[in-house]
This record gives sequence, structure tokens and C-alpha cells, in this order.
Amino acid sequence: MKYINKKLSIEKVAVENIAKKYKTPTYCYSYRQLKENIRNFKKNFKSFSPLICFSVKSNTNVNLIKEIGKLGLGADVVSMGELMIAIKAGIKPKKIVFSGVGKTSNEIDYAIDKNILLINAESESEIKEIERIAKSKKKKVHVGIRLNPNTDAKTLKQISTGKKENKFGVNEKTFCELVKYCKGSKNIILKCLSVHIGSQILDHRPYEKMLRILDKIINKVNHKFEFIDLGGGMGISYNNNDKKLNYKRYNIAIKKFLKNNKSKIIFEPGRSIIGDTGTLVSKVIYIKKSGRKNFVIINAAMNDFMRPALYGASHKMLPSVKKNTNSKKTYEVVGPICESTDKFTTLKSFQELEENDFIVICDVGAYGMSLSSNYNLRPKPIELLIKGSKIKIIRKRQKHKDLV
Amino acid sequence: MKYINKKLSIEKVAVENIAKKYKTPTYCYSYRQLKENIRNFKKNFKSFSPLICFSVKSNTNVNLIKEIGKLGLGADVVSMGELMIAIKAGIKPKKIVFSGVGKTSNEIDYAIDKNILLINAESESEIKEIERIAKSKKKKVHVGIRLNPNTDAKTLKQISTGKKENKFGVNEKTFCELVKYCKGSKNIILKCLSVHIGSQILDHRPYEKMLRILDKIINKVNHKFEFIDLGGGMGISYNNNDKKLNYKRYNIAIKKFLKNNKSKIIFEPGRSIIGDTGTLVSKVIYIKKSGRKNFVIINAAMNDFMRPALYGASHKMLPSVKKNTNSKKTYEVVGPICESTDKFTTLKSFQELEENDFIVICDVGAYGMSLSSNYNLRPKPIELLIKGSKIKIIRKRQKHKDLV
Repeated sequence: MKYINKKLSIEKVAVENIAKKYKTPTYCYSYRQLKENIRNFKKNFKSFSPLICFSVKSNTNVNLIKEIGKLGLGADVVSMGELMIAIKAGIKPKKIVFSGVGKTSNEIDYAIDKNILLINAESESEIKEIERIAKSKKKKVHVGIRLNPNTDAKTLKQISTGKKENKFGVNEKTFCELVKYCKGSKNIILKCLSVHIGSQILDHRPYEKMLRILDKIINKVNHKFEFIDLGGGMGISYNNNDKKLNYKRYNIAIKKFLKNNKSKIIFEPGRSIIGDTGTLVSKVIYIKKSGRKNFVIINAAMNDFMRPALYGASHKMLPSVKKNTNSKKTYEVVGPICESTDKFTTLKSFQELEENDFIVICDVGAYGMSLSSNYNLRPKPIELLIKGSKIKIIRKRQKHKDLV
Repeated sequence: MKYINKKLSIEKVAVENIAKKYKTPTYCYSYRQLKENIRNFKKNFKSFSPLICFSVKSNTNVNLIKEIGKLGLGADVVSMGELMIAIKAGIKPKKIVFSGVGKTSNEIDYAIDKNILLINAESESEIKEIERIAKSKKKKVHVGIRLNPNTDAKTLKQISTGKKENKFGVNEKTFCELVKYCKGSKNIILKCLSVHIGSQILDHRPYEKMLRILDKIINKVNHKFEFIDLGGGMGISYNNNDKKLNYKRYNIAIKKFLKNNKSKIIFEPGRSIIGDTGTLVSKVIYIKKSGRKNFVIINAAMNDFMRPALYGASHKMLPSVKKNTNSKKTYEVVGPICESTDKFTTLKSFQELEENDFIVICDVGAYGMSLSSNYNLRPKPIELLIKGSKIKIIRKRQKHKDLV
């Protein structure tokens, strides 16, 4: 996104024109940014060409997953719905891994029928359930076991997943027992060790620590894993002062790890692929001065975009038309929902805002639309994919009649 | 809900039977409890027979709103979708009030056409927008103005709404100016003063303080308000050690207020009407021991019921069949979604749990289904209304094909 003649533009399309034509709130995605993110991700790890499985939970739009598939990625899914949408988007089953702590029997059954690459199990009970179903189908199923490496990802508490108090994976002791169990099973073929320590990680050191732990455990269990699934969690810069993840250091650590372990690496990135491709365009409905506060009430709300309410996340905002004047006011940007949590951000030294201005929330491609709801019976926004000067509707705006 | 022959029952139906017949997760509502809550609410304030407008945002199921309407209540709505559903449920427009900080022109237009009782405006800009639309339609529109009384509701920060740093209503100065403005308008008839200081309030004193402030301001502006809308916010006991709101004291304070102000009182209760009528039935998928922790993974998740993830709310849980034995284990009850926020509660001294047990999350009638989403592409639960031994499906379970 950049300003062309003072007009904020996504590729070659002015946000203002999008807002006028398609109304607001509207999710827009930049195809060029998506392509660039995928190219960069591949480049960062090209020496060992990993299998990159897009984390579908970060964005479940089938048209986006299609594009991601065409750009060479597989899919990481966490439910039957996500597995279905990945297949519908044309992702080959042999490029799909199924993660998640609570796969039901139905979901396991469906995944086995679809012959996906891996079911990454997260508990002893799940391994036994997979075995039971595989046996009933007279099949041999390829599985991974998710290890909880008890590593602090040094990220938000809500999105940390690799510490022993988190529900994910199994501890070292159980892991060793399960490796042994799988070796004795006729219907389970243990192909993968998987880990995932959290989301929005900006420090490479937790990853280095995680790899040292993996190395030690693989030595201990003495099993040849065809795949090592390192999960995702690579963070992005939501704010200008966020530091950036040092991919070089992570890459060096993995290459070192691979010297001892000849395995194919799998990644499960979501945010780092789709996060900064998305923007949410909204309109200022009212501006209300209340004492020293200036509330800017926009027509996007927490139901459309949940991260600020759910995680206290702060997203950059930009005006659709640049005025080159800074206001002395402090703006509280809020949505119309009757909850105090329905607040997006506080803007200081922003340009003077007026009612009916269009304003954009940045970096909403990941965990934006996928976390949206119909709270306050609000229909969900339209989604658009921008390619150069072309605009494609990739999901229609929901209508009141769909809800009422 | 009570145990009949050790089986947890909603009215005359055992939860176990519901779970087996309709699968899980499943929202169930007790009609008897709903009826009792409404009767109690009316009884608490019978001396001045208020207009009770059910807060539709707490639960948007059209069949429940129908029943609530039949039991004599009106509706408080905050969006065009909610206004549509209230009308569809048979609520008379003259028993509907429209609240919310960000009503769009479309919404105002629609509300005026429907001749609802009141549009409660929350800013100067909104008053002027209502006036503009009313003028274009050559109509006189009945409005209220929401005052922000700068009163601490002493509840959770996220659900406090009546302090000056909250986005709701206008401050005293603006209120006085707007009263004057409305008196001079040909298309606006100022009928109501409205307030709402927050949700889940368990202490009557913030209400008393609010009433004293109202009394002072009404004196000051010297306007005869036909309605005083005191909002809702009456809390319920989510846990045994929650104190209970003292309705008697609140009633006394209102009666005292009414001696000076001859107005009709409007209430907008949501949680206190529907909260404890609802339960979410779920199944234990896996139990996983990890060090000292015992994770109980159920098939309900944060997408089905958001309050724990969003507000850190803790809801009571009950087993569907009572065993009369206490486990020494500490259970962490979590959902299957790949987020650490997808955690419901910690159970201590609970009975021993096993995989495939059914377990119930209590008091989910308010802000349960209405805040639900399809995160992780999970279909939304079915909703059932229980009347004695009868079970009525009041919303079908969503199917994967609706999502994929």
C-alpha cells in the first residue's frame, strides 16, 4: 500500500474508489503482496526447500487458498471444515497436514479417507483412536506426534503454545513412549515429529532453543523421522517499532540441525504469508467530542475484526486521502457495537478526521475474517482480491436476509 | 437444572439423552427458567410497571425472542439486523427502542419507517442525522438522548460503559445543549433520557448514584421526559460465591426518583432474563495427562462460546451423570481450537472424568450463541428449547456445506 497522488492505493486501485463502489466495511487483499511474501518465505529457506503448508485457520477464504496453492504451498488444517476447504481449493492431499488437540473420530475418519500427508497427533488417546480407525479400514496411516518442547516463545500469553502449561502436544516422556508404541503398531506409520511454540514470534532464539531440544530427543528415541514439522509462528511487524524476525539466524539453526537429521522440513506459516496482504476499509460514521476525548466511530466493529478486543492487538490505521496536516487531537477509534471492548486504537498526531472519511485498518489478512462473527446481528464484510488494477470479489457481502 | 436419579436434567429432560439424540456441542434453553426470570423481573419493579425491553444482542434467536415477546417484553436493539429480528419475532414496534453509538443513515431510515418507540441517540451528529432523515420524510420522530453519567459500574473494565472514557452517550454539557436543540426542532420530539452504565453489575450503589445524577440533570434542563430509560446491566451469579444484586434497594431508589419525576421507566435487561436459562452441552474428546496437568479436551470451543476467551469469564461446569466421587486431579477444561485462549475453566475436586463423558457449561444463555463464530471453520451448534419434557429445535446445527 502506498499513496499515489495523495490517495492510498492497494496495487493500482485507490481505496477511496473501492469504498465508494463496494461500500464499507470491506476486506481487501493484495495479490502482489501475497506473491512476494511467499517468494520471500521460500527464499529464506531455499537451501533445504521445505514443504510450506499454509495455516488455513489464519484465513479460510477458498479463493485465497487457491492462489496460495497455485504459488506452490500446501495446507495446514485443524478441523474437518478446513480440510474440506483446502481440498476444494485444489490443494493436493499429499501436501496437507492435519493438526489440533481435539480431532474427533469423524474428522480422523475423513482425513484417513482423503489420504493426506500426515495426521499430527497430540495425545496418547488420539494415537490410539487413529490406530483403531485405521485398523477398521485396513489401512496404514502416516502420522506425526506433536512434542511440547516446553519453550517460551516470548510472545503474548494468549498465543503461546509450546510451554508445558499449554494444552498442545505431549511432553518428552510421553513422546518417547508413543514413538515406541507406534513402532509396534501395524496400522500407524510414524513419519513426523511436529512442534509449534506459538504465534507472532519476533525473536529467533526460542526457535534455536526448540531445535536444540528436538535434536536431543531425536537422538534419544533413535527414530528416523521422514519429516520434521517446525510449525509456524513467524511474526510480522504490526507497528513500525516492532522488531523483525531474523530469518537468517533461524535458517542457520535449521541447517545445523539438518546436518545431524536427514529429514524434510515442514513449515506451517499463516500470518507471515497472509497478514500484511489484507486491509479493512471502513467509514467514519460519527465524530463525538466528549471532554478531552474525540471518539471516531467507524462502521467496522469487533465482529468484523476481533484481534483488538480479543488480544488487545493494536493495528496501524491510515486515511484513504492524505491531507498533510497533523491534528492536535487524540482520536479514540471505536466501532458501533455496544461494548467497551469494541475499540480499535488511539491515534495521536493523525491528520484531522471528518465524518464520512474513509479509514483503513492495516495488516488484517490473518485472523481477521476467519475470527469474524455476526455479533449484534451484523452481516459479514465483503472480501476483494486486488491484482494490479483488477478487483475480484472473492466473497460476497453477507445480507441481512441471510441472518434474519 | 437439577439431578434426577443422578442424571442432570433440564426441566424433565436428561442432558445425556439430549447429547445422544442431538449430538454435541448443543445449546439448550429452559422455558420454565425464562418464564420465571421474567416474572421475577416484573415483580421486582411492579409498583411502577416499567416497559421491559429485552436486550436482543444478548441472544438473537428469533424463537426465544418470540417467547419473550409473548411473555410481555419489548425489545432493545442495536442494529438493523436486530430490529428486523425483533419485528420478525412479533414484537410490536411501539415496544422497541434502538440504542447504539454508530447507527448508520440506513439504519435510522429503516427505524423511522418502522415507527418504533424511540431512537436513543448518542451524539450531536446522530441527532442531526435523525433530524435530517425525519425532515426528508416529513415525519416527527421520537427520540431519546443517552447521557453518560460518568458513573463507575464497578464491573469488568471491558463491559463498563458509563464512565467518561467510554464511547457511550454524551456528557452533561452536551446533553443540556442537545435538549435545547431538540426543543427547537420540528422533526424531533425528545421523549426520553437514557443511560446504561455497564453489564454484569452486582452492586446496587452505582445505580443509586446514577439516579441521583439523573435527578440533578433533569432539574437543570427542566424538560418533561415521558420516558426514562435506565438501561440494563443487572448481573447474575455465575459462580456460587458471586454476590447477588439487591433489587429491593434498586427499586427503592427508583421509586424515590419517580416522586420527583413522573416518567415511565424503561429497562433493557438481557443477561438477567436469558443468562441462566442456557447451557452448552459438550463431550469429552480426549483426556491428556501432561506432568501435573490433566487436560480435558471437550468438543465445544471458543468459537461456540467466547466469554472465557474474550472476558476471562469463568462458567460453572457440571457432569451429565453424577458419580458422587471426587477426583484429586485438577482438570484444565479446554476446547479443540489451536489457541491457548481456547480454555474454559479449571476444575478442582470435580468428579473423575472419562473420555466420552458429557459435560455442561452453565449460564450461557446471554452472549453465548450471539457471540459465536465459525473460527477454525467449525459449524455453529444446534439450539434447543426445553419445555417440560418437550424438546423443540429452535435453530438447526450448521453444516459443513454451509461453510465450505
